[in-house]
Formats: sequence, structure tokens, C-alpha cells
Amino acid sequence: MYKYTYHIVETNIPYLRDPPMAKEGEAWEWRMSFPDGMSKLFVSECMPQAPGLVVGLSLRCWGLMQTGWRYGMSEPQKVIHCFKVGMALCLVSLFYYVSPLYEGVGGNAMWAVLTVVVAFEYTVGATICKCLNRTTATFLAGALGIGVHWVATRFGATSEPIILQASVFVIASAATFLRFLPSVKAHFDHGALIFIFTFILVSISGYRVPDLFEFTHHRVSTVAIGTSICVVTSIFCCPVWAGNELHSLIQSNMEKLADSLDGIVAEYLGDDADADDAKKEASNEKLVGYRCVLDSMSTEESLVNYARWEPAHGGFNFRHPWKDYLELGALLRSYAHCIDALSGIVSDTKAPAFLKQHFSTVCVKLSSNSTAVLRELVAVVRTSAESPKIDLRLEEMCSAVQELQDALKALSNQETGATEMKPQEFSEGGKGESNVVPFVAVVQLVTLSSLLIEIVARTEKIVKAVNTLAHKATSSE
Amino acid sequence: MYKYTYHIVETNIPYLRDPPMAKEGEAWEWRMSFPDGMSKLFVSECMPQAPGLVVGLSLRCWGLMQTGWRYGMSEPQKVIHCFKVGMALCLVSLFYYVSPLYEGVGGNAMWAVLTVVVAFEYTVGATICKCLNRTTATFLAGALGIGVHWVATRFGATSEPIILQASVFVIASAATFLRFLPSVKAHFDHGALIFIFTFILVSISGYRVPDLFEFTHHRVSTVAIGTSICVVTSIFCCPVWAGNELHSLIQSNMEKLADSLDGIVAEYLGDDADADDAKKEASNEKLVGYRCVLDSMSTEESLVNYARWEPAHGGFNFRHPWKDYLELGALLRSYAHCIDALSGIVSDTKAPAFLKQHFSTVCVKLSSNSTAVLRELVAVVRTSAESPKIDLRLEEMCSAVQELQDALKALSNQETGATEMKPQEFSEGGKGESNVVPFVAVVQLVTLSSLLIEIVARTEKIVKAVNTLAHKATSSE
Repeated sequence: MYKYTYHIVETNIPYLRDPPMAKEGEAWEWRMSFPDGMSKLFVSECMPQAPGLVVGLSLRCWGLMQTGWRYGMSEPQKVIHCFKVGMALCLVSLFYYVSPLYEGVGGNAMWAVLTVVVAFEYTVGATICKCLNRTTATFLAGALGIGVHWVATRFGATSEPIILQASVFVIASAATFLRFLPSVKAHFDHGALIFIFTFILVSISGYRVPDLFEFTHHRVSTVAIGTSICVVTSIFCCPVWAGNELHSLIQSNMEKLADSLDGIVAEYLGDDADADDAKKEASNEKLVGYRCVLDSMSTEESLVNYARWEPAHGGFNFRHPWKDYLELGALLRSYAHCIDALSGIVSDTKAPAFLKQHFSTVCVKLSSNSTAVLRELVAVVRTSAESPKIDLRLEEMCSAVQELQDALKALSNQETGATEMKPQEFSEGGKGESNVVPFVAVVQLVTLSSLLIEIVARTEKIVKAVNTLAHKATSSE
Repeated sequence: MYKYTYHIVETNIPYLRDPPMAKEGEAWEWRMSFPDGMSKLFVSECMPQAPGLVVGLSLRCWGLMQTGWRYGMSEPQKVIHCFKVGMALCLVSLFYYVSPLYEGVGGNAMWAVLTVVVAFEYTVGATICKCLNRTTATFLAGALGIGVHWVATRFGATSEPIILQASVFVIASAATFLRFLPSVKAHFDHGALIFIFTFILVSISGYRVPDLFEFTHHRVSTVAIGTSICVVTSIFCCPVWAGNELHSLIQSNMEKLADSLDGIVAEYLGDDADADDAKKEASNEKLVGYRCVLDSMSTEESLVNYARWEPAHGGFNFRHPWKDYLELGALLRSYAHCIDALSGIVSDTKAPAFLKQHFSTVCVKLSSNSTAVLRELVAVVRTSAESPKIDLRLEEMCSAVQELQDALKALSNQETGATEMKPQEFSEGGKGESNVVPFVAVVQLVTLSSLLIEIVARTEKIVKAVNTLAHKATSSE
């Protein structure tokens, strides 16, 4: 029995995520992370082998319904989207019921329905991108198809199918190849697909359909009708903007990083052994928050791609520097890598008490100063305006780095003193560790400090990126 | 002018990737990483604003063609895939040219064409997955559509459209909602889409089409024809197995990690200042190889999803433990996070010479022992058979850890000795650094050692995961 972990990161693209390291004898689990930072456990989708097929199937359906209910409760915006899709499909299916409309498109209303089914995406940007792709590709492929058919008919009835088949082979192969290229893949994948299909449909339909021009006209107009319904419903009926989603994803990622770092440092240096279980679980949620950041790259990329298609909305105008969010996202991930390394090094151990006195204040100070900068940056991103406090916070952070370096120097003297202490002296402070432990702990503390300093360096890069972003956002208005 | 970085990781899903940190005054670039580990630079796709629209467009097309040519040269398998798609489309378009075939499906040959265009994927697994989804969804939705239409007609001509519209709204909304759920998204996304479309098509076509049963029969059979052509072409004509792709992706990721770690440690501790430029560039390629590993999660997930649909092929049978590759992939990424933190800490600096003498041998030994384990694991993954050498390699690695710890202890004494040395004594060994430098260098070396030890811990987890994988693979045969 395998179980997997899913994180849903405020987007329409939920996907299979890094399973947490399964500990010895512990099964993996279905887990959904919701935007509010909480995550819930659903074992229901992953029932063990049920006694019979029918019982098993019912249990699975029941589990799926439970999951769906909780998911719907936590993400009402997605439920609204489903109703929007239903509404758009009812609207487009009027082309079947109303005779003038049906005859107007020559009975080809199915293409309009298909367009709505395929092109209606969760965010406005994605819908616009797909609709533009689809309309343009249909138009271009229709024109090319008519051209190829016209050329083929010049060569007589025998050669016609051969020429058409050859053109289908060449154009389909070429378009399929283009779909592999990253730049085409990122922006025009759907367009290339529709181009291939429409080209084949139009060019070889000429063999069967009397008026190819009218046929193509109907195909293009039904696609145009479908895309218009998608775009209008998407924009004017509870719109979900990819830009907004991206904007809040980046902010929540920054907050998660800050929470994780604070949590990990406090866990290592603090003495909250007597904290109650509920508090511990909440803090564990925070500790692993940085993992969501590690996993958010593909979501960010698609949101950036889509946000660029969106018209001005809310605080964002059409020329908002969306692409800069990619760089910011990459920097946040590199920050998260440091936290991951840090959490690996300090997990399952506690700093010995005698070192804690010396170190904890200064380490906690540095980490909290660094996360204060990050939290200040969240405000900068939110308002897209430079913050007057940020310089102060940066200075505090730098002075904390200096303090930590001084403490390290002091430690390098104190430590060798410590190895000369008698064992019983350790026992008082360090609860009876052998005299190897202080040395390991010192190495750990030095590493912790060093990683914290590296985190500070990465924070500075983030500050720079956020300032650039805020500057560009302001000047683009 | 923005430029982005793409890594293509031996799959049909090339995607936008983490841009490397752009240094001061350095523009970002289009870069493609090819399976052979080399990456090439393409500035051509990212021309600055050209003087005129036509010139600009031609330059862009030229750039795209150049990119395409190089891409095609480096990935012949993808070119073959394009020809396969062209061939399958020629085959399916025979349904237009051959009259008995055309009449056999009632002029609905377009659905077969559409099926081939949409469902023919790069790997066999993806094609089978999409085809099964499509056929099942079409069949189920067709049956449901006929049922709903039958019920609606019982209520008389006035109520019929209302009941049909209501059913379209409810079923489309529900199916759209299901698509958000991670388990459905991962396996049945395409099926849900096709279900919605076929249901609407069948249920509301009853309003226009005289014989709904025949209409549905044609829809189902054309889809079945299309999927059969896809599956047969995909399997019997130069097949690309998702399982193979995944298998070699994991191996190449392990090799990249080993190369990166060796490279970074050698760069920091070695003295290759006189290496020539070509060698340096090749080594820089290796240094950042671990970034490909950080980015390979979504590729791995989709390959695992697809590999599970594939019949036995090569060394893999149907019950090959594909899901275990996900865990292994996650462990490799956590290894890569450590390398990222390490590279951040040691970049742009060199260990001072007097510390190098003391440390470099033991650090290089540990890192090379750790990468030797990783390289041995590549062989285990490749052959799916436990290696007799692995225990020996593990022992060597553990003894290297012990040596490093001893060296650290020795350093802790020597270091305080060093701070008591006179400045000129430093100058001899450390090329005139101020006496802060040795201290910073010591912290760096301690961090390096600590991260190396953490990497060893993560290597041990990887060993465990690979052994489990090999064991399951052997017992599943």
C-alpha cells in the first residue's frame, strides 16, 4: 500500500508532490495543504484492499466524496469556477436548441462546445492565453488548409490524395517538432495542437465537403464563438486573476520561509520540551512549510506565463513586471535549500545547555532579524512600494551577523577551554554527555551559524530582487 | 530584455526552469541542457528589438530554426517521434479517402483524427494512459448521455431542453470539480475533460440527431479507432518507454550529483588556477549539474504515472516498483539541497593554504568516497541487482567520516594555536590575509565538513532506498 502527499498551492494546477521522508514503519499518507497553511490528512482515498469489488468501490467513492467536500469547503473559489464552467456550457449549448443559431453555424455547434470544454481554465490569464492560441491557430490552419487543397486540386484527381497526404505528413511532423521547443511549448503548445488538427480537418475535408470555404468559415466562427463565451464568462463573472494568485503565492511563500526558519532555530536552541501536543503539531506544520516553496516552481512559471496575458486589474496594469517574479521565486527556493540543509543538520538533536547560554541569544537574534527582513519584504511585495523600514531592518540584520561572528570567535577560545574541563563539569551543564558530545555540538553550532550567515546573504539578494520588482511595478504605472 | 533558462531533462515535457542566479550586469540566457550533460547557449531566440517588424520576425524565425536544428541533432528520438505522429495521422486520414471506411463511421472520421492529434504522446505509457482515459470516458459519457436523453424525452417536448440543460450544468460542474482533486488530476484529467464533452455532445445532440444510438456508436467507434492507431504506432514503431526514460533520468541525476559534489570540493580545496578555459567551462557545467536534479520533480512524477501503464519491456515487467523511484528522486533532491547550500558557502573563496594541507586530503577523500557510493548505486539501479561492492564502499565512507571528525578535533587545537601565531607567519602560508581570514576560513572549513557529513547521512538514505528498489525489482520478476 503506497500513499502519496499532495500540496495544493493556491492554483488550478494541483500536482503530486514530494512525499515526506517516510520514517521506519510509517506509511505514507494522502495530505492536502491548503492556502491557509494548514494541511489535512485524508486516509480515505487510500483504503487497504477491501473485502469485495463493490464494497471497495463504494468505500473509494465515499472517500473521494469526503475529500471533495473538505476541498470544496477550503477552496470556495474553485467551487465557483465549476459553476462558471457549467454556466458557460449551458450558454454554448443554446446553439443546439435555438434553430437560427444552429443553422447559422451549419450544425457545427459541437466545435463551440468543445472549445468551451477545453479552453475554459481556472484563471483569466490561462483562459485568454488558450483562447487566443486556439483562435489564431484555427484561422491560420484554415487558411493554409484551403491553400493546400487548392494547390492539390490543380494536379488532378489521382494526384490530389497523394499531395494532401504528403502535406499532412510534413506539416504534422513539423508542428509536432515545434511543440518540443521550450519557447513554443511554454506559450503556444495548445495552438500547435489545434493548428495540426484544423489543418488536417480542412485540407482533407475538401475531398468530401462540397464548399470547403464555408466549412472552414463555420469551423473558425464556432471556435470564435466558443472562445468569446469563455473569455467573457471568465472575466466578468467572479474572475480569478493569475496575477493575483502569483502575487499571493510569492507572499505566502516568503511567510512560510520566515516561519520555518524561526521554527527550526527555536526548536534547536529553545527548551520547549513541555509544550503541549497541539502546539507541537502546529509548529511542525510550520517547520516543514519551506517544502511548499521548494515545490512551487512549475506553478510560478505557469502563473507568470498566464499573468502576462491579463488586462489591467486591481493594482496591476498590463505592463506589470511579472517576469521578475520568476527571479524572486528562484531566490526564495535557494533560501529554502539552505533551510533544508539546516534542518537536516540540526534535526533530532538539541544544543547542550552550556553552549546554549552562550549562543542561543545571538543565533535567535540573527534568525529573527533575518525573518523580520523577509516579513518586511512581504509588505513591500504586497503594496509594490518601497518600505522605509527595510534599511533599518537590514542594518539590524548586519549587526546581528557581526555579533554572531564575535560570538564564534569567543567560542573558538572557550571551546578549547571546555575540552580541558573535567568530565563532571560537563555533567552539570550537559546532562552527562561523554566528552565527544561538546565537540560535535560545537561543530553543529558553527555550521548553524555559518548557514545562518549564508541565509543572510541570500536574504540580501531577495531584498535586491524585491526592490527591483517594486521599482519596476511603480514605474510601469 | 529578459532571457530565460530551460533545462530539458530527457523527456517530452521540456519546461521553463530555474534561471541561474544572474550576476551583476550579466543578462540571463536561453540555455538548453541536453541528456549528454552538455548544455548549449542559444541567444538567437531572444533577439533584442529588431529595426522593423518584418526583419524582426525573420530574425526570430531564423533563430527558431537554428534552435530547432541543434535540438533535433541532439535528440534524434524526438525527431523520430514527429515522423511517427505524421505517419499515424496519414493512416487515420485514410478514413476520409477510402469510401467504405468513411461511410462506415457516418462521416465522423474527424473524431478519429482529433483523437490521434491529442492522444499521441511521446512515451508509450503516456499514450496508453491518455487513450484508455479517452476511450473509457467516451464510452461512459455516451451511455450516460443516452440515459439522460431518454429520461428527458419522457417529460415532453417543453421540458426536454430544461432537463437537458440542468443535467449539463450539474454534470459539467461536478466533473470540473473532480478535476481539481489531486488523485483525479494525476490520473484522469484527460478522461474527465472528454467525459464532459462527450456527455454534452450526446445528450444535446438528441435534440437534433434522429438516431442518437447510432450517433453515439459512431462517436465511440471513431475514438476507439483513433486510440488503436495511437497505441499500435506508439508500441510497435520505435517505442519510447516512460519506464526507460525514468530509469535513465534517475541514473543521470545520480551521476550529476556525484560530479557536482566532486567538482565543488575540488574547486574549493584544489589549486587549479592554471587550468585552461575549455577545461574550466566543462568543469563549470559539472558544478551546476545538481540544479537539473532540483528541477526534475515534475518530470519524474509524470514519468512514474505513465510508466505504470506500460506493458513489460526490456528489463522491466509490469509490476516493476515504479513508485519507489519517486522516493529515490526526493532523496536525490534533498542531497542536491545540501550541495546548493555548500556551493553557496564555499563559492568565491579558496581555503587558505595552511589549512588546505591539513584538510584537503581528508575532505577530498570523504567527498570522493561518498560519490563513489553514489556511482556504485548507479550500477545497482542500472542492473537492478544488489552490488557486492556497496558494503565495502560504505565502510570506506564511514571511515572517511571518522578521519574527518578526527581532523576537526585536531583543528580545534591547532586553530587556537594559529591565532597566536604572528601575522608574518600567516603571510607565508596564506598570501597576506589579515588575521580575521583564518578564523573565517576555519568556520568555512567546519561548515564544509559538517555539510559533507550531512551529505553522507543523506547518501546512506539513498543507499537504503536503492537497495529496497533493487530488492523489489528482483522479487517482482
